[in-house]
Amino acid sequence: MADLPLKGGPLEPGQTIGILGGGQLGRMLATAAARLGFDVVILDPEPDAPAGRVAAHTIVASYDDPQGLEALGAAAGIVTYEFENVPAQAVARLAEMGVEVAPGPLALRIAQDRLEEKTFLNGHGAPTVAFAAADTPEAAVAAAEQLGLPVLMKTRREGYDGKGQRWVEHAADAAAAFRALGGVPVILEAAAEFVRELSVIAARGRDGATAVYPLAENHHEGGILRRSIAPARVTPALADQAERIAARVLAGLDYVGVIGIELFEMADGRLLVNEIAPRVHNTGHWTLDGCEVDQFEQHIRAIAGWPLGPTVAVARVEMLNLLGEEADQWLKFAAEPETRLHLYGKRDAKPGRKMGHVNRVKPL
Amino acid sequence: MADLPLKGGPLEPGQTIGILGGGQLGRMLATAAARLGFDVVILDPEPDAPAGRVAAHTIVASYDDPQGLEALGAAAGIVTYEFENVPAQAVARLAEMGVEVAPGPLALRIAQDRLEEKTFLNGHGAPTVAFAAADTPEAAVAAAEQLGLPVLMKTRREGYDGKGQRWVEHAADAAAAFRALGGVPVILEAAAEFVRELSVIAARGRDGATAVYPLAENHHEGGILRRSIAPARVTPALADQAERIAARVLAGLDYVGVIGIELFEMADGRLLVNEIAPRVHNTGHWTLDGCEVDQFEQHIRAIAGWPLGPTVAVARVEMLNLLGEEADQWLKFAAEPETRLHLYGKRDAKPGRKMGHVNRVKPL
Repeated sequence: MADLPLKGGPLEPGQTIGILGGGQLGRMLATAAARLGFDVVILDPEPDAPAGRVAAHTIVASYDDPQGLEALGAAAGIVTYEFENVPAQAVARLAEMGVEVAPGPLALRIAQDRLEEKTFLNGHGAPTVAFAAADTPEAAVAAAEQLGLPVLMKTRREGYDGKGQRWVEHAADAAAAFRALGGVPVILEAAAEFVRELSVIAARGRDGATAVYPLAENHHEGGILRRSIAPARVTPALADQAERIAARVLAGLDYVGVIGIELFEMADGRLLVNEIAPRVHNTGHWTLDGCEVDQFEQHIRAIAGWPLGPTVAVARVEMLNLLGEEADQWLKFAAEPETRLHLYGKRDAKPGRKMGHVNRVKPL
Repeated sequence: MADLPLKGGPLEPGQTIGILGGGQLGRMLATAAARLGFDVVILDPEPDAPAGRVAAHTIVASYDDPQGLEALGAAAGIVTYEFENVPAQAVARLAEMGVEVAPGPLALRIAQDRLEEKTFLNGHGAPTVAFAAADTPEAAVAAAEQLGLPVLMKTRREGYDGKGQRWVEHAADAAAAFRALGGVPVILEAAAEFVRELSVIAARGRDGATAVYPLAENHHEGGILRRSIAPARVTPALADQAERIAARVLAGLDYVGVIGIELFEMADGRLLVNEIAPRVHNTGHWTLDGCEVDQFEQHIRAIAGWPLGPTVAVARVEMLNLLGEEADQWLKFAAEPETRLHLYGKRDAKPGRKMGHVNRVKPL
């Protein structure tokens, strides 16, 4: 290993942090790490990944490539990731080299399987909608009947931004939906009649200290986050409820780093957990311009064994994702005094692709 | 050229900005450029320069190396710099390739010669202390007698952070001082009996629009900036005076980019210009945590032909430079809730070397 093991204390400036994944989250993590004096090495299959262009080193390799992981482990004192579908064997390989991956294997395993995730959440006092697993078309139909209709079917593994899921309106359609999703194990979720979608970004340090950002109110379109408003206008009781959920999830996972927890606010005032993401999160991008320490620096602080930073909001922010060609309007956004522009350096503005975001900043 | 010429409109995200110099200023410029979607190429003689580790490309070459400049010009749509002693022939070589350097040749020429600088300033309604040039020991003695004592002797060219200058207490000592400074052309400056050192960071866009940040109050030790407090507590009249000076300097230089203007506040309320730096400036680091658009993004906006951003302060900041081993206290600073830490990734903490800075942030 190039660096001292973390057991010896916090990772020191000048040491190297490895990041699996070179997209926008890796890019903003890399920038935050550099600001704290760290070098960054990115591992990504693409040679021209956005994060690689702001990092000291890039390794072009697939996430399960032994040579790539070897190079990453040799360069980095600690490794983190920008997406939850990191192969378990990659983490194991790095562990064999004495390189810690944070957040750790438990958080990854839970986040990679929607059944395990919901089971974990309910077991740790973080309520969710009712759900049932199905491994066959027949089981899917039975689950749909049991949960009531409509019901949301999702593959247990993979899938993001609305991919790998579909609504089932009639129990008999569940078999076809099961096949359409590839015939892989699925989870069926009772429809959540929520009044709002909220999320909470929280962090836990190596010493067990936690820090929770104010809630964000989120609006999706076609399964993709469109905008977040933060701090969301919530009652103190609702904020307390979210903090308690965050504390339980973080402790239950013995977590290190920043986590994104998506919530449903129900009509009766309860919060249900929709899903957790063991990483920095799109609904936390507002913190870049709304907090003194943003979620990216917070994540780096946490995994490096540094003290966590303050999470109080210093401004009210409306975060708007720029999808596909929307980013072509950069000049318009740049001319708006209240708008902070964040572009990710992606070459190809495919429809729906997250090309950047803007934070519209207002006084609290 | 890899990119469209700037004459065709603003530089677009995805295009490349070249930076001469890979120190901390280049590093913070590179990060700001990346946030706006630009790629960055750094040219620096050192292979492991701080800015190179956050840039898409690095060219390791001296600033007057024809091949290095060729590669820079081929990669970049526009070139800027982090220090004012860029060789004039480098700018000329890039211009021959059709690559613009901003801020332009006039600003560089003026800033590289203290005699030209003071002459320019006085000619544009920006007052300075009285001064005289000397090219021989005898002329130095005569100048010292003319200006009164003590008098500050500086080499006309080069020198920074208090290097290349010395105080002369007796006119007869001026000859020895002249020789001690290398026998090169010098300028002698009357002692400024200032009550405070202030500075103003300002920007001018390609369209001639200007934007001026609130004044900073600066404290030097041994010729090196130790700390800045901003916004400085000043009367509206003093702020007006600073803005008028900035406007005259920017217009007089037909300037594009961010400029740092160091000022002396005299007992009678007048502001004198100490020196100008045609670049982002150490006394503007407070803007990273005190303004919505910091001086680095502002500079990138200006040179790229984008609209300038707001310069209003959203917090009160005390910026403290971390010199040499002071940066070893990173863990102490990281634990202070009000302190934002910025480390430059320099390997070798030589005494007096600028290793990083902290911004201590308070409500306005």
